[in-house]
Order: sequence, then structure tokens, then C-alpha cells
Amino acid sequence: MAVAKKMIQFMESSSWIRKMFEEGARLKAIHGNENVYDFSLGNPNVPPPPVVNERILEVIQKNVPGMHSYMPNAGLLETRTAVAQYLAQEHDFPLTADWIIATCGAAGALNIILKALLDSGDEVLVPAPYFVEYGFYADNHGGSLKVVPTKSDFTLDLQAIENAIGPETKVLLINSPNNPSGQIYSASSLQQLGAMLNRKGAELGRPVYLVSDEPYRKIVYDGVSVPCILKYYPHSIMATSYSKDLSLPGERIGFAAVNPAADQGKEIMGAMTLANRILGFVNAPALMQRAISSLQGVCVDVGAYARKRDMLVTALKSFGYELINPPGAFYLFPRSPLPDDVDFVKLLQEENILTVPGSGFGGPGYFRIAYCVADETIERSLPGFERAIKKAESMR
Amino acid sequence: MAVAKKMIQFMESSSWIRKMFEEGARLKAIHGNENVYDFSLGNPNVPPPPVVNERILEVIQKNVPGMHSYMPNAGLLETRTAVAQYLAQEHDFPLTADWIIATCGAAGALNIILKALLDSGDEVLVPAPYFVEYGFYADNHGGSLKVVPTKSDFTLDLQAIENAIGPETKVLLINSPNNPSGQIYSASSLQQLGAMLNRKGAELGRPVYLVSDEPYRKIVYDGVSVPCILKYYPHSIMATSYSKDLSLPGERIGFAAVNPAADQGKEIMGAMTLANRILGFVNAPALMQRAISSLQGVCVDVGAYARKRDMLVTALKSFGYELINPPGAFYLFPRSPLPDDVDFVKLLQEENILTVPGSGFGGPGYFRIAYCVADETIERSLPGFERAIKKAESMR
Repeated sequence: MAVAKKMIQFMESSSWIRKMFEEGARLKAIHGNENVYDFSLGNPNVPPPPVVNERILEVIQKNVPGMHSYMPNAGLLETRTAVAQYLAQEHDFPLTADWIIATCGAAGALNIILKALLDSGDEVLVPAPYFVEYGFYADNHGGSLKVVPTKSDFTLDLQAIENAIGPETKVLLINSPNNPSGQIYSASSLQQLGAMLNRKGAELGRPVYLVSDEPYRKIVYDGVSVPCILKYYPHSIMATSYSKDLSLPGERIGFAAVNPAADQGKEIMGAMTLANRILGFVNAPALMQRAISSLQGVCVDVGAYARKRDMLVTALKSFGYELINPPGAFYLFPRSPLPDDVDFVKLLQEENILTVPGSGFGGPGYFRIAYCVADETIERSLPGFERAIKKAESMR
Repeated sequence: MAVAKKMIQFMESSSWIRKMFEEGARLKAIHGNENVYDFSLGNPNVPPPPVVNERILEVIQKNVPGMHSYMPNAGLLETRTAVAQYLAQEHDFPLTADWIIATCGAAGALNIILKALLDSGDEVLVPAPYFVEYGFYADNHGGSLKVVPTKSDFTLDLQAIENAIGPETKVLLINSPNNPSGQIYSASSLQQLGAMLNRKGAELGRPVYLVSDEPYRKIVYDGVSVPCILKYYPHSIMATSYSKDLSLPGERIGFAAVNPAADQGKEIMGAMTLANRILGFVNAPALMQRAISSLQGVCVDVGAYARKRDMLVTALKSFGYELINPPGAFYLFPRSPLPDDVDFVKLLQEENILTVPGSGFGGPGYFRIAYCVADETIERSLPGFERAIKKAESMR
């Protein structure tokens, strides 16, 4: 056997998702790109604020000697300091560069965190629905996911989490605003979560680490804000990126922040830094590190996403879809009008509408709409959404 | 236990290297940076050709919509095509974009290759001395290194490799020009290697994959060139970066090329692409991918490195050091004048000269000098190198 057995298995298990993409490509080839409504990918369509390219230009024109050179594996001190100062001010939480690692996006951050923490056989608890990559990330480093349910509105079910914590539980991984549900965990629920984790940690004689994946932190609506996990539980680590708030997902720039009060926090920072090196990231891309140093707090036009959300939520509700009006991220996660979400996603395909079945996110019975697309795509897709639910109703 | 046990062990085992760095930092604090001769790091000191920043500026100014967006995990078609065309022309070897993946440097390339190929327990053969990170890379993906000796001039010992190939051998990993020895494997030795691997593959009933790590391919002297491994063995994969030939190590841009004739080559490409995604690289940094598309064949001033090499080799030989005059890379790997290379490196530290013991590269009895430093550093270090070998001789 040439290819690793596990990778063959991964490729096969993801082949139904690939088949859906292939079906989308087939539809686009037949009907033309503009007549296929592609809501399948979380690729931000709102452009980066103009200041992003301005800052990159400034960095290049400044041409500091060694600007493209190797650096410490944790990143440039200037960048880590800027991130720490911004976080400290944003959340009124004391933080210094010592607790920040620049990473290859949030995906890089999560991989170095799990590499640093997981022993073989350790479990990573994750509330469903969840970002499908988490399973791979845990497996990369010898761990496995244990999925726990959320409440009907996708908020945390603390009792379910508490019941699921056992001797193998090393990490609880949360994602707020959530992909795919768009839900945000409130300050009070995080406070209760922290209290429960402290209690369980005392029982276990060691902490369960809380890892918070927050790339959508700034993509929030209606005046809501995302509470900072570091304030609610000492053994916490934040992972995030500039992929969504600056629309830079292709540039692979993000960071991880370790709570200074975390048990073995210094050792974890050391292990994450080593992991950044030995996993082959080495350091987050130098040029983007320099650029984001002076882009703290800058964000894309969230109003554009809010408009898209409102347009789609209002229309879908009027057609009879059941869904929460999500306070963050750029996804809707409606209930599937057919019992099998894959069947309904196929019905939508007949309307040239591409979405992703909730089964792909540990949320069968739902489907995900990524509304980070042109307004026109949304407008033109609406009749198809209406026809699809009518067809589904007639099939029941 | 909070931090993964393996990571604690890795941090402890690398602590002696860290201690050497700390000793270097201590010396610099006492004597001033300019009075400590730091040959410990392979951080290119020859600046990138000016055209590099020009091309980055052009990309930014062109401001193509979606320039910072997600892309296929294998990279931009434009970049992969440019790389394939350049390789095809450089080596007169047919290659298309289908066989190229843009990566987060050579370190990223090696990690996705090993993730794609290794099953738990598989062995990666590596000729010593070798780049110390290889052990981590193999371990990341459930494999382990098996070290085989080279000849006294660090060229390949085919018999030793053949003897070491067994049922667990999945990969032979070579690195030419070599870090730390600077040696290059000749076309004839690669031809013999290919023939031997074909024979062993027939015996085993499956191929041993040949992975060639080539970030120093363009850093060569005296008219020597580095043969292209793809021409000598079908089951071969090239990993490289622009870190050295464009002096961009901090930007994390490189690629992997799979031989179109490799057994299960398409599946390997698929598995590497999936590995790029799930290890958290997702894709090589977008901006640098666009820049390098129009920088194929561009290289730093290798003459500057040649001058440094000649200066140092001539002087060290005149002092009595035993070393080969390496045809590539920017390292010297002299024999340690004391039996224990760590002892001799400490003697050099007494002269404010920082080098790395060969033991760190699977080459005990030698030490590595990274001469990618200012000419002045080399000049001013020479009396210290002379005193150190005299001291060593008086100790024997």
C-alpha cells in the first residue's frame, strides 16, 4: 500500500462532500456560474478593508532588513505585542506578548494547541454541530472527538457537557460564533461553563482545557459581542485568525492566546511554539505578521453580511423554513424540511442551489447555507428555496 | 498531566541545543553582538533580489478581486503551472500543474508528504548527517527515522542503504545539497540509487518512495548543478522552498512535486492535498504564491556565499581543520578536533564563536558552521578558530 491507510479512509469518507462539489461544478458548467447559487463555501465575499493592502504596501516599501527572514517560532515580538495590547484593551484582561503565538490561521493555531496538549487516546469534547475539520485536527495528534449535543437553539447544554467529561477528556473545544449554526455563547453560559469545568477539574485532579475557536468573533450583528473566554476560566486557550474580520483567509494569519493563569501555561506555550516549528509551520508568514501589527481592531463591513442575513432569514421564514436568526458568523443552519438532510440538499440542487447537509457538521436534520455571497445570488436564489420547501412538503 | 508527554520529552531532549543558544545570548549580552561570531543558524544573510519585493508590490497594486481569498488546497493554478513549466524546462522532464502542490515551505511539504505516505510503524530511512527536524516530521505522522551512514565525504553509501531497507521501510529521505554537510549527490549515484530501489521494490512487492528535500538546490558553487531526482526513479517526490534561493524563509513558501510515474501518484497527490488542509496549512500563503509565479528561476547572489565559503574553508584548512570543500548549501561540517564534538563546540564558545555539534545532526565527531553571515563576522572569527584548534591539540 502506498498511501497511508488512514488518509485513504479520510478521502473516501469525505467523498460524498466531494461528490456534492462535483455536482455543483457540473451544474455550473451546464447553467453558467451566474445561474447556480453557491452557498456551500465559507469564503468571505466582502472584500478586505482598503487599509489592509495599504499596510502591506507600507511594509514592503519600508523594506526593513531581514523582513522576510526566519524569526522566533512564536512570531515577531512587535506582532505579538500588538495583539496582546489590543486583546488586553478590548477585553480589559491583562495579557502580554509572552502568551501570544502568531499562527498559520486558526487551523494552524488549533493544530499546535492540540499537538501541545493531547496524549494518545485523549478525548476532545465538542458540542454539535461543529466545524468538520475538528475531527481531523484531533486525530492528527493522537486524539479523538467526542461529540455532545447542544440545546435546540444550538446554545451550550452544560449538563450534556458535564455528563460527557471523563478520565480521557483533555480538551473542551468550543466555537463561538459557531460554524455552522451562527450561535454565540453568552457571558452567563460561559460563566456557568467555567464553574462547572472548575468543579470537574477538582474531581479529576487536573484541568480540562477549554479551547475557544473564534475566527468569527467580529462577524456579529444587532449589537451583540462575543465574551472573552479567558475571563471565565483559567485553563483556557483562544485560537483565531484574520481570515474573516479582514477577509484574508488565503494568507494564513492568525494567533493563539494562552491564559496566563492556565495550569502549566508556560509549558503549554513552550510546547505550542515547538509544535509550530515541528509541524512545519515554522512561523506564521512574516509579511502578514508585520501587516497585522498595525491592523488591530480593523474589520470588514459587517453591515454587508447583516444585510445578506436579514434578506435570507426573512425570506426563508416566510417560505416556512424553521431556523434561528443567528447573531454571528455568516451561516444559516435551518432545519431540513425532509427527515434526511442529504435528500433535501439534493432537492435544492435541482433548483441550482448548493448548500451542505448538516450531517457533515454532526448536525443531521439540518443544512448549512453560507451567505457570504453576492446580494444578487441571494435574491435570485429565493424562488428556488421556495419551490424546494414546497416540493419537500408535498413529499411528506 | 497537562502538556502532551511526547512534547515534554521533545522539549527536554532539545534542551541542550537551547542551552547552547542561551549561552550564545549570554555571550552577546556580555561582549556585544558584534563580538560574538554566530554561525549557529541557517538564516540566509544575503538579501532577496530586489525583484522579489517589486513583484510583491505588483501583486498588491494589481489588486485582483479575491487575491487574499481561499483557493484550492493544492494552490493557485497559475502558480502550480508556473512551477511545473519552470521545472520541466530546467530539467527537460515532462511535468504539469497536476503534479505540483504549493506548500508552507519545504517543512510544510515534507509534513504533507509524510502524512500522505506513512502508516503507523513505517520507517523513514535517512542518510546521516541529516537535518534534525526530520525525526520530528516522521514522528508527527506515526513513523520513525532509521539512520544510515554515508561515506567519509558524506556521499551516499548505497550498500548501507540497501542493507537497511526492510519490510517497514516506506520512504528514503535524502537532502542534496545537504544540511549540514553541504554535499551534493551526483547523477551517477542517483542513477545507481534508483536502480537499487527498483530492485528492492520488486523484492518487497511495493515501492520504497524516494523523497528529496532540496531547498538548497540553487545554492551551489564551482559550476556544479543538482541532478533532478524525478529523472532517476519513478516513485519520487521533490520537496523544496524559496527560503534560500530567494532568501524568503519567513514567508513560508515552497512546493512539492510528485513524479507522474509514481505508483499511486494520483492518490498520493490527493492525500497530500487533503493533508495540506487538515494539518492546518489549508493553502500556502496566497500573496507569496502570486509573487513566486513570476519569480521562477530568480536567485540570490550565490557568489556572495561562494566568497564566504572560500574564505572560511581556506582559513580553516590552513589552521589544520579537516573538512570537505562543500559544493552546495551554506554550511561547513568539519571534523571535531576533540573526540567529543560538544566539548569542541564549547571550546569555540570560549572564543565567542557559536556553532552546532554534529551530534545534533546524527553526525557526532563533527560540528556545523553556518556561514550565511556577514563577511566581517567570518574575518573577525578566524583567530578564534585558530586558537580553538590549538587548544584542542594541546588537550589530546
